This record gives sequence, structure tokens and C-alpha cells, in this order.
Amino acid sequence: MTLINETIEKIKPLDKEAMAAARKRQDDLTKPAGSLGRLEEVSIQIAGIQRKASPQIKHKAMITMAGDHGVLDEKIGNWPREVTAQMVENFLKGGAGINVLARQAGARIVFVDMGVASDLKPDKQLIVRKVDYGTKNMCKEPAMTDEQAVKAIEAGIEIVNGEVKKGLDIVGTGDMGIGNTTASSAVFAALSGKTVEEVTGRGTGINDDQLQHKIDVIKRALALHNPNPAQPLEVLAKVGGFEIGGLAGVMLGAAAQGVPVVIDGFISGAAALIATALAPQLKDYIIAAHVSAEAGHTAMLDYMGLKPLLSLQMRLGEGTGAALGIIVAEAAVRTLNEMATFAEAGVSDSSTDSP
Amino acid sequence: MTLINETIEKIKPLDKEAMAAARKRQDDLTKPAGSLGRLEEVSIQIAGIQRKASPQIKHKAMITMAGDHGVLDEKIGNWPREVTAQMVENFLKGGAGINVLARQAGARIVFVDMGVASDLKPDKQLIVRKVDYGTKNMCKEPAMTDEQAVKAIEAGIEIVNGEVKKGLDIVGTGDMGIGNTTASSAVFAALSGKTVEEVTGRGTGINDDQLQHKIDVIKRALALHNPNPAQPLEVLAKVGGFEIGGLAGVMLGAAAQGVPVVIDGFISGAAALIATALAPQLKDYIIAAHVSAEAGHTAMLDYMGLKPLLSLQMRLGEGTGAALGIIVAEAAVRTLNEMATFAEAGVSDSSTDSP
Repeated sequence: MTLINETIEKIKPLDKEAMAAARKRQDDLTKPAGSLGRLEEVSIQIAGIQRKASPQIKHKAMITMAGDHGVLDEKIGNWPREVTAQMVENFLKGGAGINVLARQAGARIVFVDMGVASDLKPDKQLIVRKVDYGTKNMCKEPAMTDEQAVKAIEAGIEIVNGEVKKGLDIVGTGDMGIGNTTASSAVFAALSGKTVEEVTGRGTGINDDQLQHKIDVIKRALALHNPNPAQPLEVLAKVGGFEIGGLAGVMLGAAAQGVPVVIDGFISGAAALIATALAPQLKDYIIAAHVSAEAGHTAMLDYMGLKPLLSLQMRLGEGTGAALGIIVAEAAVRTLNEMATFAEAGVSDSSTDSP
Repeated sequence: MTLINETIEKIKPLDKEAMAAARKRQDDLTKPAGSLGRLEEVSIQIAGIQRKASPQIKHKAMITMAGDHGVLDEKIGNWPREVTAQMVENFLKGGAGINVLARQAGARIVFVDMGVASDLKPDKQLIVRKVDYGTKNMCKEPAMTDEQAVKAIEAGIEIVNGEVKKGLDIVGTGDMGIGNTTASSAVFAALSGKTVEEVTGRGTGINDDQLQHKIDVIKRALALHNPNPAQPLEVLAKVGGFEIGGLAGVMLGAAAQGVPVVIDGFISGAAALIATALAPQLKDYIIAAHVSAEAGHTAMLDYMGLKPLLSLQMRLGEGTGAALGIIVAEAAVRTLNEMATFAEAGVSDSSTDSP
């Protein structure tokens, strides 16, 4: 717990002076004030996070964490457990959606085995922080022990700290784990008190009967453990996942180091729920990349008070939405830094002579 | 008119075979079917436009057209007419929003003087196709003659044809013209029959009294000319603008050459209204980059049946939204082309064994 607590203590409020300077510059740039909309907001937020009036986005990384889920024994979806490991291999060969979009964003990718159910072939792009060979079936026992929950979060903190040493101006989060929308819905219901029906969607694509079964499974798990919503680590242990805990750690560690975190969809959102429950001031460091097509994601972002940048009906995970979000964040910072001011360009500024 | 008619005749329906092949590939890629949402749709649309199962986006261009507006004599905004020319100079020096975002998108920019009220310094980045030194005040006389309307559209066609010769896989449209939201609202009201109140917004930022005045100005112009909604060229001539006509020509010319057109905000939308009224089959070649913060833009996109990719509360114009739209379109094409299929990656595909 020491590393988690130390990390949380390092998360400061955003730098108000840097934000005021960035806002002043936005108003001086050659455009009607406010006309870059969300890009202006994000540029000012990043100024506050990086504590610089002129923030920079040069070193970009995606951290995509994989883990398996014991609850899959309840037959909650169409995809076999092996697909988690197969998709990690696909990542390492460069053939997945996240590879393509991170490449376009100019972001390096860090793949992490947080708890895949099988041993993966060693690969220099893969960090192995396997907490266990998949979680337990939360319908029968806690998904993980309290010690494993701590270990998962600490792994995330340590990984992002390592990336900061290599140079890191922005980080995106992503996930891979067959069954992890079930765990994420359970985490959201447990922490928010919302009904399971409200927070449960079709994941990778299930039919009405399967959706009802998934809801029943989550209800059984919550009834069995009755996790205390005021104890985010308990919620993670009882109904969470190793990759969810790891991503929560990435978010805490990044914020502690003054690095903006672009979160992906529903699973990264569940990690953000746990991380912001542990450290409410973390919220200001988060940029919600997109609202996914997963039912419940809109409610999840609303619950945290996060406004998504994009709405492209994506629901792939892996960090694909976050990679696009990094591109938008970069556009925000580039316009702030690279546009000319009215004075520099010799353009008349209406704001100086209109009411 | 010959060039316009010839161009319209060249706009074919999209290539259904290429679209079917792209859709098949999307379903074979290592992801749940449909999970890339709008990216999948756009990739298939571009396959149909480029008539290739594997479309490419390598050569990208923004075409940003500038023109002045006689209706500014009615004091409809806060910015003086000179700002149009000053902003074009800012474009040529690289300091505007469109310069920054086109650079990020990897798109070259073609700036065109379609009718700025003053002579601009010659510059090799600037194409001068000045139809006149600004339009006339539409509250007193037609904005332009019928011949000028034709000339503006033809200039757009010729410019995009020139760009196609240099290599062009996708083109974005942008505008600069103080007063041009007024002309665009007038065009939209005239073509759609919607009330002026429904289609008129605050442009670069005007107060309630100014908005009411702007609405009155547009109503006076429409009452004076009563343009026939079945005659898009007449609408352009009576209440349009030179950059609006030019952009309509760019759209027609691009479609005729099989090049997807990413349209920016409200002014590009007005151009698209005219162009799609002339050639309804053009609609399939258009990708709406974003819905802007300008009131009336949502209604405009709905009227054309276009779904915007982004909603970032931007209202800067210049093509800034289109530049971001090009990035998203590129993400769509890259994922289609570069992701591995299930068979290639050795990943189990649920769709083959689930109901």
C-alpha cells in the first residue's frame, strides 16, 4: 500500500497559473475567442497538468494491459478465453487496431501481461507483470485477493514511472481481456449504486438472452460479495480484474508525475472509477477520449463528470479510442503553441473594439 | 455552364463491388464485427468513392477559399472587412489554425482568392481566381451576376482538377470571409424553405441584438430577391458568395474524379447545399467532418442527410474541422488496410461458431 499512498499524495491540484497563461494565449490567437471549442479546453487542461503555459506533446505512449477473467466460466460471451492470449500475440506482431492507430498517432505502445491465463512467448515489447493466471470466478469467490489488488495497481504505477523516465508527455490507456466488460459493469454498479441493468451492455456483441444472463451473473456476484462502495480496493478485489487494477495504477502514477492520461472506453473507465475513488483529484488529469457504443459508458462518464472528445460508435477496446484521443489532444496543444497572435500577424482583433 | 454540366455528368454512383469487398474485409479483421463503428463506415464509403477495395490516403490537400461580402455594409458583425485579407496573409505566413491542423494531418493547403475586396500580395501558395472585389450587398442587389456564379463554380472545378493531376486521394474544404455566415444562412433558408431564425447563428460571436439584426438583414435580402429554390445557381447569385460557389465547384470536381471530399462547417455546408442541389449523387462523396457550434449547422447536416464525424464545439472555419476530419478518414482507411485478419493472426473468430 505504501507505493499507492505515496503516489496519491503526489497528485497535486492543476497549476492555475499555467492554465491562466494558456487561456490568455488562446484569447490572443488569430481566431474568434473560443472558436476552437473543446481543443481550447483541452490545451488549457494539459497546461495545468504539465504545469507549463506552453505544454508539449512529443513523447506519446499507449499502455495496453491484458488479463483473463474467471467469470468467463459462467459463459457470458461468444469468445473463448484463449482469444486474450491470441490477441496479445496479434498486438506483438503489429496486426491489431491499436497497432495501426498508435502508429498514426506517433505513440509507442507498451503491452503488459497483467494476468493472462496462459504463459505468453517472451517478447521485448511485452512487459510481464502477471498477478495470476486470470482472476477467479466472481460468482463463486472474490476475483482476486486484497494483496493481488494492491499488486495490480502497484504494477501500473511502476510501469508508468518507467515510461516517464524514457520521456512521456501524454499517455493513453487500453485493455484486452475476454470477459472484462462483465467485470467493468460489476465495478461500476458496486461503486455507483446504479442498477446492474443500467450499467451492462453487449460487450463484443451478444444477443438479448445472453445480455439477460450477463446481468444475472453480475447480480449474483454482487449479492455474494456485497462490496463496500467506500472501499475501491475491495471492489476491485471482489469483482474487478488485473488489467483494470493495472490501468488504475497507470492513471494514478501518470497524474503523480504531471502526465495527462487519455482514457479509452468502458474498461479504462472502470479503472478510472477505482482510481478516482482512491484519489478524487485525479479526475482533472483525465481526458476521456471517446464515448463508446457500450451501453453504460455514457452513464459512466457522466458519473465521473468527464466529457468525451469523440463519439464514433467504437467499441473495440485495446486503447483504439485513446489513440485517436491522443491525436485530438495533440491538435489542441499544437494550435495553442503554433498559431500566431493577432499582434504577431497584424490582424485586427474585434474583441479589442467591440462591446 | 459546359464545364459544370460535364462535371456533374461524370459523378457516378459509388462502386458497389469495391464497397462489398471492403465490408467483407472489415468483417474478417481481428476485432468484433462493427466494433470500429464510424471508422468502418467511412472506410467502406471511401472504397466506393475511390473504386478500390483497398482505398489509399496518401496525397491529402486542403482547399481554403476566401471572399468578401457586400452585405457587411449592413453592419452584421464585429469584424472589419479587412480581416479577410489579413487572415489570408496570416495563412500564407503559416500562423493560422488551418496551417497548424493541416500540418498535423499531413495535408498540403491550397489557398484561393475567390473574391477578396483588395489585391493580395502575390505568393506562390496563393491561387488568384478573383471573380470580383467582394460580392454586392444582397440587401440592395444580387450578390453577384449569374455569369459570376458560374465563373466561381468553374474556378473550383478547375482548381481541384489541377490538384488531382498532382496526386489527390482526399480533399478538405475550408473558407475565409468576413460576413460569410450571413450569406450561408441565406443560402440555406432559400434552398430549404426553413425560417431564417432556424438557420441563423452567431457566427464569430455576436450578441442578441446583433443576432436579431442579422436575421432581419437576411429576411430583407430574401424578400427582395425571392430566389427560386429549384435553381441553385440563382440562389448562389442572389444571396451567396464567391468562396461558397468556388467550394461547390471543388466538391463537384472532386466527386467527378473519384476523390472523397471532407467538408468543414457552416460555409462549406452552404456550398454543399448548392452542389448537391445541382448533383444529388454528389452526397455519397461527402464526408461531414464535424458539426460546428454555429446554430443551424446541425439542421443543415440533417437536411442533407450527412452524419458528422466530430463534435468539438469548433466554429473557426478555414477548414480546421475538415483537417481533423481528414485525420479520422485516414484512421478509417489505415485500419481497413493495415489490420490483420483472423486467419492471418491465428485468432479464433467467434462469428464463425456463434448463432
